[in-house]
Amino acid sequence: MGWGDLGAFGEPSKETPNLDQMASEGMLFLDFYTANPLCSPSRAALLTGRLPVRNGFYTTNGHARNAYTPQDIVGGIPDSELLLPELLKKAGYVNKIIGKWHLGHRPQFHPLKHGFDEWFGSPNCHFGPFDNRALPNIPVYRDWEMIGRYYEDFKIDLKTGEANLTQIYLQEALDFISKQQASQQPFFLYWAIDATHAPVYASKSFLGTSQRGLYGDAVREIDDSVGKILRHLQKLGISENTFVFFTSDNGAALISAPKQGGSNGRFLCGKQTTFEGGMREPAIAWWPGHIPAGGVSHQLGNVMDLFTTSLSLAGLQPPSDRQIDGIDLLPAILQGKLIDRPIFYYRGNEMMAVRVGLYKAHYWTWSNSWEEYNKGIDFCPGQNVSGVTTHTQEEHTTLPLLFHLGRDPGEKYPLSFASDEYQRAMERVAAVVQQHKATLLPGEPQLNVCDQAVMNWSPPGCEKLGKCLKPPQSDPKKCFWPH
Amino acid sequence: MGWGDLGAFGEPSKETPNLDQMASEGMLFLDFYTANPLCSPSRAALLTGRLPVRNGFYTTNGHARNAYTPQDIVGGIPDSELLLPELLKKAGYVNKIIGKWHLGHRPQFHPLKHGFDEWFGSPNCHFGPFDNRALPNIPVYRDWEMIGRYYEDFKIDLKTGEANLTQIYLQEALDFISKQQASQQPFFLYWAIDATHAPVYASKSFLGTSQRGLYGDAVREIDDSVGKILRHLQKLGISENTFVFFTSDNGAALISAPKQGGSNGRFLCGKQTTFEGGMREPAIAWWPGHIPAGGVSHQLGNVMDLFTTSLSLAGLQPPSDRQIDGIDLLPAILQGKLIDRPIFYYRGNEMMAVRVGLYKAHYWTWSNSWEEYNKGIDFCPGQNVSGVTTHTQEEHTTLPLLFHLGRDPGEKYPLSFASDEYQRAMERVAAVVQQHKATLLPGEPQLNVCDQAVMNWSPPGCEKLGKCLKPPQSDPKKCFWPH
Repeated sequence: MGWGDLGAFGEPSKETPNLDQMASEGMLFLDFYTANPLCSPSRAALLTGRLPVRNGFYTTNGHARNAYTPQDIVGGIPDSELLLPELLKKAGYVNKIIGKWHLGHRPQFHPLKHGFDEWFGSPNCHFGPFDNRALPNIPVYRDWEMIGRYYEDFKIDLKTGEANLTQIYLQEALDFISKQQASQQPFFLYWAIDATHAPVYASKSFLGTSQRGLYGDAVREIDDSVGKILRHLQKLGISENTFVFFTSDNGAALISAPKQGGSNGRFLCGKQTTFEGGMREPAIAWWPGHIPAGGVSHQLGNVMDLFTTSLSLAGLQPPSDRQIDGIDLLPAILQGKLIDRPIFYYRGNEMMAVRVGLYKAHYWTWSNSWEEYNKGIDFCPGQNVSGVTTHTQEEHTTLPLLFHLGRDPGEKYPLSFASDEYQRAMERVAAVVQQHKATLLPGEPQLNVCDQAVMNWSPPGCEKLGKCLKPPQSDPKKCFWPH
Repeated sequence: MGWGDLGAFGEPSKETPNLDQMASEGMLFLDFYTANPLCSPSRAALLTGRLPVRNGFYTTNGHARNAYTPQDIVGGIPDSELLLPELLKKAGYVNKIIGKWHLGHRPQFHPLKHGFDEWFGSPNCHFGPFDNRALPNIPVYRDWEMIGRYYEDFKIDLKTGEANLTQIYLQEALDFISKQQASQQPFFLYWAIDATHAPVYASKSFLGTSQRGLYGDAVREIDDSVGKILRHLQKLGISENTFVFFTSDNGAALISAPKQGGSNGRFLCGKQTTFEGGMREPAIAWWPGHIPAGGVSHQLGNVMDLFTTSLSLAGLQPPSDRQIDGIDLLPAILQGKLIDRPIFYYRGNEMMAVRVGLYKAHYWTWSNSWEEYNKGIDFCPGQNVSGVTTHTQEEHTTLPLLFHLGRDPGEKYPLSFASDEYQRAMERVAAVVQQHKATLLPGEPQLNVCDQAVMNWSPPGCEKLGKCLKPPQSDPKKCFWPH
């Protein structure tokens, strides 16, 4: 989902009454970012509070390439990483993930080995259907074991776009919350729904209800579900004791537009890019009785902050034996403070850009390669800013392209290199970058090696279902990351 | 000002708390249009309830060219046109225009000859400063006579952007409202401020207060002023008896970006074009006690509707001796009804496009000429949709380009001509267009002839101020309209 997909953020169909109400009862973040313009690294950052280049969710197979966890990925979240649920356990929290995990699907990466107590969902994207010979269909897990596969036991009708997965995820959430309220145990629920990810889907009762087509139907169902979750918290009397945050893992995928693509508002480009459209996210904090209603924050925030903020809410300290990139947002949320901090825009192993205050400096630009672009893959459809949305990797490290995101949120007008404003701003930015690079200790890259043999052929539980498939011979090789 | 310039419409700096509050207390229109992507024709349409092609505010000097009322224009609003204030007078209304008139500056076009009782403002744009030899500076009128000129008596500092005009216009508005409340006479106030029109300006206390630069400062001052006007109505106890509507006369001028250009959100292109960015406008209706708070309407609206709606509010009927394009919006505003009506997108003498429901069909496309574009004049900076944002006038009358504005508000993905959806939608659209064209009686074009001699050399009142200038010899010729 993208920045511009919510009515509160100016989507012209204004079809998200529940999220808009969540914002009007809570706080809207206008300058909130993901740590990476792609799913897996973004989620790894959210759960570790660390940039993907630290936690290993990146590749060195190529320069500045987006990588994630397809079925044949060998790597996943390293044991050495401390995930939010692992830490919350120490404060008595029960942790559940509903939806897409995406931090590795092999046994050692299972979410219940990384702090979660319960899981309902899948390890990978709901791509498919596959033939179970060249590629197995993605399994759906309940806790330790698979209970079926997408397109087999969990239907997604690619023709009509119908699938009731969001309803299942919603029911799982409501049940978990009820159970935790009844047992009086604190809980962390990571509700990682994926209906707006291609192939986009919605339940029957939402199909055809949006002005925006199938994508809008999916947004409406998510909106409706969020409303039901918030009302459930209120009904159970625990809303004033439950912090809720809504955000997305990357910008809307414009490549899927218009049928399956969302909106990044007036920002440049989309998912996969380090322009604002790829990394600025819709974000809403909600906590009645604590967060002043109708608040709007210009705090530069990041999904990694949810790690540190959640620990703070639980009375815990972040780990002190490693670099944590997330900051505690509570002073911004509860007291309206503005904390000075930069935003780093990474693509794979490269820091492409950095935001300091209202200035954003691009050290590298590219949207995607000419080769891919000429095949029709366009991360910036209808947008073309000369020298900015480049189709070759352009280095600007000696003279970064600088934009003022207040006057120019669309990144269309680089400041003149000769201007005083450029000189002054770059002094600040350069100091931040130098400090960042000097202290950066990259993690072991996890997304370099792929092997057909590690796919979801025989996940735990497959025997009971008669759904075990025979893996091919192991043949590890370098993953190919085109973007 | 453009659709995307208000926080309520998703401007990422969210700096319009008063307009946003106006929306939350009233009704936000998401699908509201101007009748023309340029100032004069739009204002003529607003005040006559008629398309410019009917009321004469267009040119036939070229095909599909935008024309307006610069100083050397010979034409203006014809006497045969009935303006809103003329009609409101019959119901006892006192009418005042504050700000830019723009319907002709020669004596016969004076607003007080067309139904207004009072005027404070100027007949033309605040361009300048001029040398008073080749071009006179634009006069500022109080009622019948000029009281000074821009850049002479009414300062605009082009270097700092400072001018206190919006404050003067605000005070004029507050005073007029107070006077009308005291005299218990109904009033119509047309508050036509122009701070966001290049050269953009703001008062000293607003300069530098916006994240968005000078343009944002101007928006903030307008926002603040609207808030003061609404609170004044409330303080005087007449807010429940006063209908207030906020809108703009065309899309934001992207050509002036980023320093002086606003935002049309995610819509395509800007002012001067018949894409959504040129003609979809921010719009808010406010009438406490009558309009339900927080309403949002998808009614297709048009500035021409303000003519008919205002008459309806005053218990008057629109003229029956001529075609009126504006509709009465009260059923949409007060009862939430959706009235089926098309939107016509005219550029000069050509119907470029039409919207019916969520479908928009382009019969002609062009942004601007290659000649102008190569000079750096770009109405779609950073945007380029192949075959859509064309730099030659492209005719599509036999096979219009069709967009679904729900799925594709950015007009990036024309529907396939071969699709069933195209066929079905175009049947509806074609019927609307045929009906429109069959009954269209174009007015006498008023914007064809220009003459240096008619400029504001010696406006009424200039003698008292010693500000009369000597006009050159009359030399009427065809006006040149490059866009």
